[in-house]
Parts: sequence; C-alpha cells; structure tokens
Amino acid sequence: MEEKRSFRRGPREREDAADQIEGRNAVSEALKSGRTLDKVFVASGDTDRALARLAALAREAGAAVVQVDRRRLDQMSATGAHQGIIALAAAHGYATVEEMLQRAADRGEAPLLILCDELTDPHNLGAILRSAECAGAHGVIIPKRRSVGLTAVVAKTSAGAVEHMPVARVANLVSTMEDLKKAGLWIYGTDAAGTTDLYHADFKGPAAIVIGSEGYGMSRLVAERCDVLVSIPMKGKINSLNASSAAAVLLYEAVRQRL
Amino acid sequence: MEEKRSFRRGPREREDAADQIEGRNAVSEALKSGRTLDKVFVASGDTDRALARLAALAREAGAAVVQVDRRRLDQMSATGAHQGIIALAAAHGYATVEEMLQRAADRGEAPLLILCDELTDPHNLGAILRSAECAGAHGVIIPKRRSVGLTAVVAKTSAGAVEHMPVARVANLVSTMEDLKKAGLWIYGTDAAGTTDLYHADFKGPAAIVIGSEGYGMSRLVAERCDVLVSIPMKGKINSLNASSAAAVLLYEAVRQRL
Repeated sequence: MEEKRSFRRGPREREDAADQIEGRNAVSEALKSGRTLDKVFVASGDTDRALARLAALAREAGAAVVQVDRRRLDQMSATGAHQGIIALAAAHGYATVEEMLQRAADRGEAPLLILCDELTDPHNLGAILRSAECAGAHGVIIPKRRSVGLTAVVAKTSAGAVEHMPVARVANLVSTMEDLKKAGLWIYGTDAAGTTDLYHADFKGPAAIVIGSEGYGMSRLVAERCDVLVSIPMKGKINSLNASSAAAVLLYEAVRQRL
Repeated sequence: MEEKRSFRRGPREREDAADQIEGRNAVSEALKSGRTLDKVFVASGDTDRALARLAALAREAGAAVVQVDRRRLDQMSATGAHQGIIALAAAHGYATVEEMLQRAADRGEAPLLILCDELTDPHNLGAILRSAECAGAHGVIIPKRRSVGLTAVVAKTSAGAVEHMPVARVANLVSTMEDLKKAGLWIYGTDAAGTTDLYHADFKGPAAIVIGSEGYGMSRLVAERCDVLVSIPMKGKINSLNASSAAAVLLYEAVRQRL
C-alpha cells in the first residue's frame, strides 16, 4: 500500500486501459518478450510461490511492483480473470540517465534535462515530452513510483516525441539529483517563493529543471536538493502555471539563452 | 451543417455533458434566467414555430445556433427527451473586445490579447486562460463557431482563471483582427515558416497573439491577416508545440520583454 494515488484512476486515466495486461500467463509472456512494464499490481496476502516469482521477475525488469487488495484488482480488471496480477505496459522503452548525458556529450552541448516530480496526469507528461523534444533537451526523468509512466495516452499526447526523447525512470529522484550534481549539472526548481527570477537564472551551463506535481508542486526533499529556486513572474491573481505550461516556459528560456 | 467538427464529441468532450440542457422548456428557462449559452443544436427540417422562436432568442442572446439531424440530437441526448433542441451552457459569461482594451487602458499597459483560432480541446483552452491570466494578458478571444466555448472542463482546467480573465467570443475572427489593427494592435501569428524568430519579435507594444488550432494551425485567412509571422525555434524532430505550450512560451516572452 505504498502508492495510494495510483489506485485512483480518474476518467482521463481510464483512457489508458489498453495498456493493461491481466493474468499470470499474460504477464509472464509480456516479461519474456521483453515488453517494458511500468507497474505490476499483485494481490496482497497471496503467498503462492508462482505469483511471488512473477513479481520478482517484474521487479528485476524495472517495473514498480505494488501490493494491493484483491478487491482493488477486481475493480481494475477488465476481463474479470486477473488471477492476482495486473500489469500496466509502457508504450515505449526507458533510457538511462547515463545515456542522456552521453547524448548531450555526443552533440557537444551542455546537458539540459527535465525532472518530473510525481506528475499524475498523462496529458501533462505527454505535453512535457513534446516541449522537451522541440526545445532540444536531452532527456526527461520520472520517478518509478507515484508518477504516471509512459502510457498510451502519454505517447499520443507527446505527438511522436516519445520516439525521440529519452525517458528514464528512477527509484529515487533525490539520489538522482545528487548524481546529476556530481556530474556537474545545476538543478533548478520552480517555486513561487524562488529567489531568482526566471529571466535571470542561468540555463546556459549543464542544467536539470525540476517540474513539480500538478497538485502539490515539488516535494520538500526535492526542493531542498535544488541549487536554485526559480520563480516565474505571476502578473495576475492565479499563482501558478499548469505543469506542462511551466515546463514549456522554462525550456524555451533555456533555448533563448543558449541561442 | 455548417459546423461539422463540433458533432464529433470525443471522450474528453463528453466530460462536459454537465453543461447540456435538453428540451424546449429547459432551454427557454435558461435563456430567461440570463444563463449564457455557447451553442444551441436545433433539429433540422423541423419547421414548427415554437422551436424557430427559441432558436431566434438564443441567437439574439449570443449563442451559436446549429441545425443538426434529429438522429444526431438522439445520439447527444442524455435524457432521451430533447424535443428537437439541446443547448450547451457556458460555465462563465463572456466579455467584449472593447472591455479588454479598456482593461489595458485602465492599467496603463499596452494591450496584450490572445486570439484562439478554432481550438477544439477544452483542456487546451483552459490551460491558455490560466497562462494568459498568469502573464497579465488583458483578454482571450475565441470564435463563436468551430471552437470549444467556456465549458465546465475549460473552467476547471483554467484553475480559476476563468473568473479573472475576460473571454470574448466573436462571429468572425478575421474582422475582429481588422478591428484590432485599427485600434493600433500588431497581430502576431505563429508559423513554422515564420520569418521572425520568437525572441526578435517585438511584444512590447499593443499586441495580439494568434494561437492556431490543434490539428491544422492557423487557417489561411487568419494567417494572411497577421502583421508578423513568428517562428518558435524547433531544435528536435517534432515540428510544433502543443497549442497551450506555444501560448505559454509566447506569453512569457511578452512578459520578459515588458519587464
């Protein structure tokens, strides 16, 4: 029960039901064929060994394995025959952070990465992939848990960007931030109370930009790890942009500075 | 049959069913109470006078009246008792273009307006309202026909911006552009083939920025009326941003230049 939010699938998330693989044989075959799984929901309290082995294989392959109530699986199931396991397949394979940094090096460019802190709306992640691709970023990093993955809706909203823009999923965003700092990147978070104005932040060097979640912004641990907290000027009464609009504004400020 | 696209209501538009008012009495009462109607669908071939009078009243009140097949109304109907008429109510009232220009004058600012050319996705229009409000724009103009109106989903996606940002609906976007030019505004369109780079366009003076539709970009007639065609730099393989991301980038370039 470590990932509560992903159980509440709203009407927009239900569009993604096409990615759902149900039952032991189906999930086992998907793993054997090398298909990338985002999440695997396994019935809790179910101690049978075949299921435990399948969960271990999924975990090894990089999926987030989540224990859920059998009743929850019944609700999620489209076939009514989930046999204690439902997997959500990714619409595209994942890359590694190292591959992203190599991509920047190969092009002779300072790395420009986007880190998404627990985005839950697939339309937002899709739009961010599209903007990142258009702005010439080198990759988008998402956490493995408490985040939408590369679902069919994300792929569709990205307008093809998912084919060109490497996406990495990481177990722990905070430790990835530490790794990026060691690799020489500056980490920019966005915060209404940020001390640096968007247009005075320096995105010319190696940079990673953190986009907060739709409802809560950046988590505290993530915000504390940022080198610079950037504020986007707010001229009206609303105090924040939509996550994908904020990403577009930040990415294109980087484009402007790097021209 | 002058507005084909609005019949195809995809899964995301069906979220807006709460705005739907069905039947003669219900539509008549909505009009009497002063509720703003975006669209009124009336059965074609139905020559009865009560229906014709109701359509005339709706038109007078500013709604786009669209003749449709009775079978189409049957498909749209949630109650099964539409009596030849279904109206879509707006989640908020509309403003006029004059009010927007006055708003800019009252603040002692050069007008900054957004013109949306036939957007059909309510999430895009909602995100644009939110970005426009955050960037301190003075209004958003949409065409009465072939465009999503101020639906409940638009209002929700706008995160409250619909309460602060004036939205005008106009019968003819091209003649509105002519009026804006006479009022001293420069009209900026976005086009991949644009001759002026985003960062070299001058948004400091009175400006209106046109955002093209999701699938087709700006229509030819609208593109021809623009004073300047601006290109947003595209560094990857995808050749355009999502409509609301493009709007955010353009609006915040205006914010930067006006600082």
